Amino acid sequence: MTQAPESKALRRKLARWISDEYRDLNGSHIETLDRPPSALEFSRLIHVSRPVKIKSMYPCFLKLTTNLTPVSDFTVPATHKWTNDYLVRKMVDRRISIAITPNGRADAVTRGLDDKPYFVEPHVEQMSMQELLSRLADQGADPSSNIHYLQSQNGNLYSSEYFSDGGHSLSEFEPLRDDVPSQVSWCSEALDRCPDAVNLWIGDGRSTTSIHSDPYENIYTVVRGEKRFTLLPPSDGWCLKVRWSSILDPSLPNTLPTDITPIQVRLRPGEALYLPTDWWHYVQQAKETTIAINWWYDMEMRGMHWVFLNFLRNQDGLYVDGGEDEEADVLTI
Amino acid sequence: MTQAPESKALRRKLARWISDEYRDLNGSHIETLDRPPSALEFSRLIHVSRPVKIKSMYPCFLKLTTNLTPVSDFTVPATHKWTNDYLVRKMVDRRISIAITPNGRADAVTRGLDDKPYFVEPHVEQMSMQELLSRLADQGADPSSNIHYLQSQNGNLYSSEYFSDGGHSLSEFEPLRDDVPSQVSWCSEALDRCPDAVNLWIGDGRSTTSIHSDPYENIYTVVRGEKRFTLLPPSDGWCLKVRWSSILDPSLPNTLPTDITPIQVRLRPGEALYLPTDWWHYVQQAKETTIAINWWYDMEMRGMHWVFLNFLRNQDGLYVDGGEDEEADVLTI
Repeated sequence: MTQAPESKALRRKLARWISDEYRDLNGSHIETLDRPPSALEFSRLIHVSRPVKIKSMYPCFLKLTTNLTPVSDFTVPATHKWTNDYLVRKMVDRRISIAITPNGRADAVTRGLDDKPYFVEPHVEQMSMQELLSRLADQGADPSSNIHYLQSQNGNLYSSEYFSDGGHSLSEFEPLRDDVPSQVSWCSEALDRCPDAVNLWIGDGRSTTSIHSDPYENIYTVVRGEKRFTLLPPSDGWCLKVRWSSILDPSLPNTLPTDITPIQVRLRPGEALYLPTDWWHYVQQAKETTIAINWWYDMEMRGMHWVFLNFLRNQDGLYVDGGEDEEADVLTI
Repeated sequence: MTQAPESKALRRKLARWISDEYRDLNGSHIETLDRPPSALEFSRLIHVSRPVKIKSMYPCFLKLTTNLTPVSDFTVPATHKWTNDYLVRKMVDRRISIAITPNGRADAVTRGLDDKPYFVEPHVEQMSMQELLSRLADQGADPSSNIHYLQSQNGNLYSSEYFSDGGHSLSEFEPLRDDVPSQVSWCSEALDRCPDAVNLWIGDGRSTTSIHSDPYENIYTVVRGEKRFTLLPPSDGWCLKVRWSSILDPSLPNTLPTDITPIQVRLRPGEALYLPTDWWHYVQQAKETTIAINWWYDMEMRGMHWVFLNFLRNQDGLYVDGGEDEEADVLTI
């Protein structure tokens, strides 16, 4: 059953009103901090729920004053330490899980042979760190080769089990744990909780991440190479959702309505991004081998914020009984 | 121009969805703290944006570590100190502004002789503290007397000018300022700002406050007597707004839809309530002379929260072109 034209007009009016109000009030600017915030400063930033760039994550003294596991000072991983040689020497011949795709898009929506959209998970192979780093060095020279990307994002460094079982839970990257604190102290203190997952990412410019949003507070830092984020607030979801698969790079011309301006953030080694819950992000990386770490924290579920984000996520679901004409709907906005 | 029935159905569905989601997630329970929160704890509570009862405000050591004017320890006003004798002795014959109404409802919507609703401001008279306290003592004995209520709520103790002019701005209650800190340190620190207004309230059980909401973060404490708050979240505004004047006491039977359950909070001397921005509140007080103080702080305007509250406030305005049949609309929900 499709909706009467009036319902659609109302939906559209509503989505645009929220989107416009948010943009009028907040602009397209984000704050940059020279050093990490205190727990109290970060708590205020979580309430504002806008991305913040932090120019220097290291050295960052992490004295954890909550009742969580104490964490050592966060002085590493430093850019000079995680060379290919070092990583291979530490990891030796341990097997790690690597996504292999023909086009560099793991976890993406792709058109099938029947021209219908499918959410595609990548093929995963086990290999050594040495093999991964060699493939990344080689694949730039051969454009037809498959793309390798360490992006297992299941808490490959520290998972929620690690925090609940007293630190016994293992990791494929056990030997690198000494270099990575399990928590970002000011974030753990501000949210009064441990991370849900801490992940290591290793790839290069041929891997990108389709635009999407995660229901997590995210601290993302670059160790080597460079990451480029293209960001849109949760309130701009109305112009992305339906054509998910076709908006691979929202910074290209004519991809978005003219008044929707994504925020661009470039992260170099030692820099970090606070990416709040439900912000839409498209991520590219430098040509050379790029290494990043992120800490995902469960968001605060009490109060209004979750309800509102849920409302933005489900706007269509609230009104539409059938989706046959959604594409046309969006195209005419 | 009125709307098609379908638009109304959509509006109603939307308002109920948000209202129900909020209630499902948060229930009708509020947190009670035995002592004041730290600035970090309070910052987290602001993000949750639910009322919190604080069982003991005094003694509360207010070391202000921001760059705001330092504040002495908040050990007073204590209940034993602000007797009628003490208040009269301190204030002598200074003139203070008192609202006088026939029914105890200052700043309320009332039906005029033409049966149309009017927002009515109270008649204000200048008198001494002694006269106010005598009237409050007398008016219980004579039910036909006019109702006196000190409720000037313009920052009668400390206004925003006080904080911007270096503390020179005067108050009708100058002699009582020694007993009342200009700021609540944990709130000023959490919000990183000074209050916008600090108010003294003196009245009795014959004065009530119609249900309404304020665009401020509010710390409310009772010094003498007792206040009873009936609270509803901003998401329940849909069942209040239109029939504003008739909902004087939302805790009475058949006033609200059956599944909307207001939160009841009783404040005794030394207790405080954090009342977040835009929460609907109806306030009653004990029969005897009741004295309260509140600190209003501007809310955080950046981010989503203000946009969402604005959206809830303006839900009708977004869709309705005319309001002729709004009453019928609400009655059929």
